[in-house]
Amino acid sequence: MAASDIERAAMRRALQLARRGPRGLNPQVGAVILSPAGDIVAEGWHRGAGTAHAEVDALARLDPRAAEGATAVVTLEPCNHTGRTGPCSEALISAGIARVVYATPDPGANSSGGAARLRAADVEVEADVESEAAVDLLGSWLEVQRLGRPHVTVKWAQSLDGRAAAADGTSQWITGPAARADVHRRRAAADAILAGVGTVLADDPALTARTPDGGLGPDQPIPVVLGRRDIPADAAVRRHPRPLLQYPGDLPAALEDLRSRGVQRVFVEGGPTVASAFLRAGLADEVLAYIAPVLLGGPRLALDDIGVGTIADARRLAVAAVESLGDDLLIVARPVTEGDS
Amino acid sequence: MAASDIERAAMRRALQLARRGPRGLNPQVGAVILSPAGDIVAEGWHRGAGTAHAEVDALARLDPRAAEGATAVVTLEPCNHTGRTGPCSEALISAGIARVVYATPDPGANSSGGAARLRAADVEVEADVESEAAVDLLGSWLEVQRLGRPHVTVKWAQSLDGRAAAADGTSQWITGPAARADVHRRRAAADAILAGVGTVLADDPALTARTPDGGLGPDQPIPVVLGRRDIPADAAVRRHPRPLLQYPGDLPAALEDLRSRGVQRVFVEGGPTVASAFLRAGLADEVLAYIAPVLLGGPRLALDDIGVGTIADARRLAVAAVESLGDDLLIVARPVTEGDS
Repeated sequence: MAASDIERAAMRRALQLARRGPRGLNPQVGAVILSPAGDIVAEGWHRGAGTAHAEVDALARLDPRAAEGATAVVTLEPCNHTGRTGPCSEALISAGIARVVYATPDPGANSSGGAARLRAADVEVEADVESEAAVDLLGSWLEVQRLGRPHVTVKWAQSLDGRAAAADGTSQWITGPAARADVHRRRAAADAILAGVGTVLADDPALTARTPDGGLGPDQPIPVVLGRRDIPADAAVRRHPRPLLQYPGDLPAALEDLRSRGVQRVFVEGGPTVASAFLRAGLADEVLAYIAPVLLGGPRLALDDIGVGTIADARRLAVAAVESLGDDLLIVARPVTEGDS
Repeated sequence: MAASDIERAAMRRALQLARRGPRGLNPQVGAVILSPAGDIVAEGWHRGAGTAHAEVDALARLDPRAAEGATAVVTLEPCNHTGRTGPCSEALISAGIARVVYATPDPGANSSGGAARLRAADVEVEADVESEAAVDLLGSWLEVQRLGRPHVTVKWAQSLDGRAAAADGTSQWITGPAARADVHRRRAAADAILAGVGTVLADDPALTARTPDGGLGPDQPIPVVLGRRDIPADAAVRRHPRPLLQYPGDLPAALEDLRSRGVQRVFVEGGPTVASAFLRAGLADEVLAYIAPVLLGGPRLALDDIGVGTIADARRLAVAAVESLGDDLLIVARPVTEGDS
């Protein structure tokens, strides 16, 4: 039986509830319980790792047996996983829920299978209701589940001929104000912004997301520095509104720790050594190349060795967009990996 | 007095006549003599260096005194220069021409000033008649006069990160068929195609302009090799339909010799050493960067040292076009020189 208008409206409400929860390690999920007559009898949402899942949170607001024969409308497929909380599918079955409507499937290797479990217990299940809005909300979290790590954007600015700086190391500013503003907008959409310790020591970047007037934006990614060298007490990055994280240089370990802290999107700011390391390790999901219409020549390359020995191994990119930003060009691309069509 | 319709029609005829002459060291120029009644009484065109200029060629077809009071319609400002032929301005004055209509001024440092000389002799002068068509015809020649040397296009193909090849030197094909076809079209529009001897020895290029089916195009630029090393007798470039020119490596001297041979447009094909040398010497009027959506990293750069030590000296480019060619991008740009607006 397809979802009714009442159920669709309840799903939109559940999506609103989901946004009350924190963005982080766990998905933002909302749930609404509808009585057989179609009235909302309970609402719930997930408040973050270690707290009740949205369905359980909603059920907890009902008297025992009040959920019998009711419909649960949930933004994410109920989990089938015993983690810090029990599996939601079992909780729904125990409560006597007769029908479950959800927006988008749970892609987690350990947590998926809830729909099948419900069906096996003779609960009616309706999937993909308002799924587009749910994917909008959960896109980054879903990507983390798919990748098994945070999504990584690697950004660099270069001259047309691929240099990050002139021979003497000067680089301010290769690209113009429109390109720099675009970088700040995209930084703000990330959960962490990562730079190599060499870049931090050489350029003393603030690793903040700034508004066009130079002020701090409302959303600040966590500043992350990669590399073992000490960061001076007076470094700009230490004045960042969020506390600094530093990792020795093992990329998968750093990403795993960031994931455990709820980081879903990492913006790799550079310099060339770090950008090349992510590309070499196959850990770049998106690249942003800001290209200034200048030629520099010389030894200061925007990327160094990325592990390509011969032309057949070139890292092919699928170009998603070419944008004009003032005099500069931005190329947004995705590395094409083996098996991509 | 503005040009009459009869004079405009005569100019269009003169432009047709001009095309009968050869493209080369001298401009293609045509001339028509109109009687005071507006009838065409003589036609002429320039047949190349050392032969009569178009006005003189036309006057020579008239009886003595038949040009008295007539109007000369010429595609280029009559010269005021005594070269291998006498100045045309004097010839027109001597013949008793009463009015001169021309399409575009002579920019030559030695040959210009004809209009002023004519006016000083009380000849009526009307300039800029059908000038757009004349500039279309003479664009490359006018550019040579302005620059004092042939126009130079420097082309290279690169990965997004500015590499010409992978670490082991393999590069076929960084760019795709649409980009390669575009290169061949642009080669055909040049008078000479130039490569470094290192590239000739390493890659054995044919330096021909080919059609999409792989055949030779109708217009073949002169193959030019820069550098002292010997080119083997069996090199592909020796099978070029036009004889090979080789220069030791002094760029201005090479361009001067090419100019003296009537070369107006040089297409610099590479490799990186030669492309960089032209840029370093400020002898690139246009750059064509074919950018493939791949990353290569490593040491094989499309450009090496171009003489930029610090960011303030970056070679800024005015981007004329960004074109999509299959999966590749072509950036057409002009180096901005001091004093450009």
